[in-house]
Amino acid sequence: MNTNYQQILDEIYAETRPMLGQGRVADYIPALAKVNPRQYGIAIHTLSGEAFQVGDARVPFSIQSISKVFVLAMVFGRIGETLWTRVGREPSGNAFNSLVQLETENGIPRNPFINAGALVCTDHLVSQTSDPLLNILSFVRMLSNNPKVGFNEEVAESERQTGFRNAALINLMKSFGNIENDVDEVLKVYFHQCALMLDCHDLARAFLFLANRGINPWNGEQILTTSQAKRVNALMQVCGLYDDSGEFAFTVGLPGKSGVGGGIVAVIPNLLSICVWSPALNSHGTSLVGMKALELFTTKTGISIF
Amino acid sequence: MNTNYQQILDEIYAETRPMLGQGRVADYIPALAKVNPRQYGIAIHTLSGEAFQVGDARVPFSIQSISKVFVLAMVFGRIGETLWTRVGREPSGNAFNSLVQLETENGIPRNPFINAGALVCTDHLVSQTSDPLLNILSFVRMLSNNPKVGFNEEVAESERQTGFRNAALINLMKSFGNIENDVDEVLKVYFHQCALMLDCHDLARAFLFLANRGINPWNGEQILTTSQAKRVNALMQVCGLYDDSGEFAFTVGLPGKSGVGGGIVAVIPNLLSICVWSPALNSHGTSLVGMKALELFTTKTGISIF
Amino acid sequence: MNTNYQQILDEIYAETRPMLGQGRVADYIPALAKVNPRQYGIAIHTLSGEAFQVGDARVPFSIQSISKVFVLAMVFGRIGETLWTRVGREPSGNAFNSLVQLETENGIPRNPFINAGALVCTDHLVSQTSDPLLNILSFVRMLSNNPKVGFNEEVAESERQTGFRNAALINLMKSFGNIENDVDEVLKVYFHQCALMLDCHDLARAFLFLANRGINPWNGEQILTTSQAKRVNALMQVCGLYDDSGEFAFTVGLPGKSGVGGGIVAVIPNLLSICVWSPALNSHGTSLVGMKALELFTTKTGISIF
Amino acid sequence: MNTNYQQILDEIYAETRPMLGQGRVADYIPALAKVNPRQYGIAIHTLSGEAFQVGDARVPFSIQSISKVFVLAMVFGRIGETLWTRVGREPSGNAFNSLVQLETENGIPRNPFINAGALVCTDHLVSQTSDPLLNILSFVRMLSNNPKVGFNEEVAESERQTGFRNAALINLMKSFGNIENDVDEVLKVYFHQCALMLDCHDLARAFLFLANRGINPWNGEQILTTSQAKRVNALMQVCGLYDDSGEFAFTVGLPGKSGVGGGIVAVIPNLLSICVWSPALNSHGTSLVGMKALELFTTKTGISIF
Repeated sequence: MNTNYQQILDEIYAETRPMLGQGRVADYIPALAKVNPRQYGIAIHTLSGEAFQVGDARVPFSIQSISKVFVLAMVFGRIGETLWTRVGREPSGNAFNSLVQLETENGIPRNPFINAGALVCTDHLVSQTSDPLLNILSFVRMLSNNPKVGFNEEVAESERQTGFRNAALINLMKSFGNIENDVDEVLKVYFHQCALMLDCHDLARAFLFLANRGINPWNGEQILTTSQAKRVNALMQVCGLYDDSGEFAFTVGLPGKSGVGGGIVAVIPNLLSICVWSPALNSHGTSLVGMKALELFTTKTGISIF
Repeated sequence: MNTNYQQILDEIYAETRPMLGQGRVADYIPALAKVNPRQYGIAIHTLSGEAFQVGDARVPFSIQSISKVFVLAMVFGRIGETLWTRVGREPSGNAFNSLVQLETENGIPRNPFINAGALVCTDHLVSQTSDPLLNILSFVRMLSNNPKVGFNEEVAESERQTGFRNAALINLMKSFGNIENDVDEVLKVYFHQCALMLDCHDLARAFLFLANRGINPWNGEQILTTSQAKRVNALMQVCGLYDDSGEFAFTVGLPGKSGVGGGIVAVIPNLLSICVWSPALNSHGTSLVGMKALELFTTKTGISIF
Repeated sequence: MNTNYQQILDEIYAETRPMLGQGRVADYIPALAKVNPRQYGIAIHTLSGEAFQVGDARVPFSIQSISKVFVLAMVFGRIGETLWTRVGREPSGNAFNSLVQLETENGIPRNPFINAGALVCTDHLVSQTSDPLLNILSFVRMLSNNPKVGFNEEVAESERQTGFRNAALINLMKSFGNIENDVDEVLKVYFHQCALMLDCHDLARAFLFLANRGINPWNGEQILTTSQAKRVNALMQVCGLYDDSGEFAFTVGLPGKSGVGGGIVAVIPNLLSICVWSPALNSHGTSLVGMKALELFTTKTGISIF
Repeated sequence: MNTNYQQILDEIYAETRPMLGQGRVADYIPALAKVNPRQYGIAIHTLSGEAFQVGDARVPFSIQSISKVFVLAMVFGRIGETLWTRVGREPSGNAFNSLVQLETENGIPRNPFINAGALVCTDHLVSQTSDPLLNILSFVRMLSNNPKVGFNEEVAESERQTGFRNAALINLMKSFGNIENDVDEVLKVYFHQCALMLDCHDLARAFLFLANRGINPWNGEQILTTSQAKRVNALMQVCGLYDDSGEFAFTVGLPGKSGVGGGIVAVIPNLLSICVWSPALNSHGTSLVGMKALELFTTKTGISIF
């Protein structure tokens, strides 16, 4: 296994930069549509305490669905296995199915990484905390060791103004009794968590506890039990990339989570976490260059679970 | 990592035998319903040429959906990537969705391990070979090194007599132009492949090429390219166990494939293949004791990808 | 044809009163659940200016979905055929399908009498009028010739607090661009229109324009064109009673509209309108005694379109 | 009411002939695709024993789904109300929904006029009769008073070769236990009944019993009870024209049944039956000129139920 990470990052960056220009930036909200599509960065944090980076690794971006992992961790750590009475742990189909599935499966979403399932996690958080937005900020600032991490209010507001499908999902779940709180309050938190701004460096660092059996490597705090961390990784493996989950398992072969902001975070248990960001997406909503970069990373390091 | 496999198998067997009696044997066809539910065997083959076993490892059983891996390998090896124009590579939802999905996605099944996708693979085989049943037999006999492997005609006939949902799926795909051959001919082959009889020893052996980058370790024959073998393993990882795929990824963490006959085969790339069989199933149709045995195997060996 | 309406009403009332006690009052909101299920009234208005009634014909009740006809008439009368670009004119399946259908048919509901379609009509009204609630009141007061008709605010508030499925529907349509206004504003109007309180006498009177080619018989005002009135009647005929539309066509054979408050209004074109009310419902949400009363009415009068 | 039927037919024919050339002939099977689209005929039979016709009223055509009324009448007349345990009596949505509905409603189709429901009726017929094809022929020959009525074997064979969606539907119902006989046997009968060849004159005559309270007006035979005939008419009213049922109720306002061969039959209870045929279809699969002709017929005669 090749662990000369800086050299590997430099090689990947050089090899993939010509791909910039391919793909399309998410354009369903103006705040995302105006992002420069040619930005590109990668960062690594290892359990041995090293950090590596290349390109725009310190430029904050909208992490979008990657935030689902943070909220899942916050809620799962608090309430444990009872979480699974209200959300499943199995892969799902596409967006279309989520409405049909909710209908036929009594408002229980398939997993915490489809929007419906993430909304259930956020609803749990709203039930458990008096200031859920502050709680999310504290959690992510602690994990990333960056007290300046914040929400992009413009993005949050844009999400709110266009998030009618999410409103449909949460109201349908509420009609089945699977949402405890006011739907607008839960949606407000949800749209804010999607609008968290982190850079590759901080985001990779914030995921390192998942490579470390649930323990924050910098302060030893147990965020999740070993079993819980393993569960989150397993879920990312089978359904972290929506309709690219099978493709990601094949080409990259690591537990990972993507967001339509163009970020992808992946975890190599007991070794490292890696974050890549480039805003232009493939047809499944995954960062086009990001996916290629991670494929090259597992190839060049010789890491492959298959 | 503990590689004292025989001792590990003996421990697992002793620890899990008390669970026999839990779960229910598949009863949708008489030929499966009458199987003694207390049978239980495990077998391992390593790339270094060793074999280990415990319990009823030499009792043949109906491999059912495990056969989907064989037919996928046969077809994928022949036609390569063009396969994916007629079947997807992503996880799916449950049986319900497969009909809706076929309807809304123009007759293209989500992956080769749901019934609809397996039927597409079988249809390919029927197109490519003059005697598909003989071809399947030859392929499985070669991989298992057992010339006596055969079909259980009673099971095949029972499948045919009750397989109306499979007939609905294949006719719906045919209406979309995604089945080339006569539906009854394809169903005949499909029902026979499900009725293949192998024991744990032979079945583990037959899967070893997937742990060996696609190469049959006994004769060096390239069954699949390295990339193709990795693809099949990735697919087994994300959707090899239907509605237990997420649970299997969490508790076992290996690429695997189950069948309602009670068998599960899993692969540790570059190391070994393992097959466990016990006919009583959990509520998702997976061998109850088999799943526990594989969980203990990865725990005791210290193998975990998460 | 027997037109001795008072005698017929008296006979029907005597014959069907023993059925009181069967069926179940709608209980999804407290304000409806507490209604006395043994109430029962019928009223008729003829185009020749006569009125007949029996039982609790002057007790106001929550008209619920019957209000969809009023809002449809208001909107259809204003914008005419362009209405059909945003809502269909064909029967639909059950509640379940309305979500799937909206999904697969790009947010266009099947007809104005399923909730999704009624919400589109209400959205039109919100777009067209500065005070839609006052407009609805004026319209219904004018048609019923009763200036005291009003909303039951307790019912409207209960609807709002439990109307999550309606919120899911309207948000889904909004995500397709088929709702122009703020969803909460439209829902507020919708929940109020459902909470209109009228008695049988007033409600029958308010529907008489549909038996009179769209003309209000008391003041000669053209509410709808002849063609539009015919269209509304045809729609009531094929889909006015949800999953009882086929049964109603068979047993009653008239254009009609039901509400879960227990009211049913029916129209005999060029002759009369009739309203029956009894709160206890059959398993499809239709007034159990009300349906029987209308069946007897067409039988006893000799009116039958089949 | 204008009852000068011959003059009315002549007027309609003259006014609508210029529309020939619009629409498209069904082309899913060659035997239908090659039909001359400019053919056009109308025929009327009255209960007073008169017959009228214009154009190609004596040219036999493939009656397709119109045959569903015959088989429903045969089965309903034999077994009565128990029919409704296996098929519903309510409108449905489109073809798409029929699969979803069958899935979620345990294999019970919505009504006898969608394909799934018609297949259930045909299955009943296969159960009840030793030679169902001969029975159908005898029934239709008796009603039409034409012993030469027959099946178009070329059409039946084409239907069989392309009827995969029907095969999917019947197999799905069989998997729910709602088909008693061998699916291929039922399909054979179904594809033949669709391939019945009648001309407008004979087809109108064959439907006259539905205008006559279930009694064959020529020999006094009770085909259906009065109630059963009323039921069939009510069903035709609400769901006889698939996705044009609402439009047909509005523009024509009569119980009717269409077929993709371009025929439409309608019934005016206690008065007459009328059949129009012209092969070119609108986008919903209804005869384009036929629908216009029937609209003109109700307008010119002054018959309108709304």
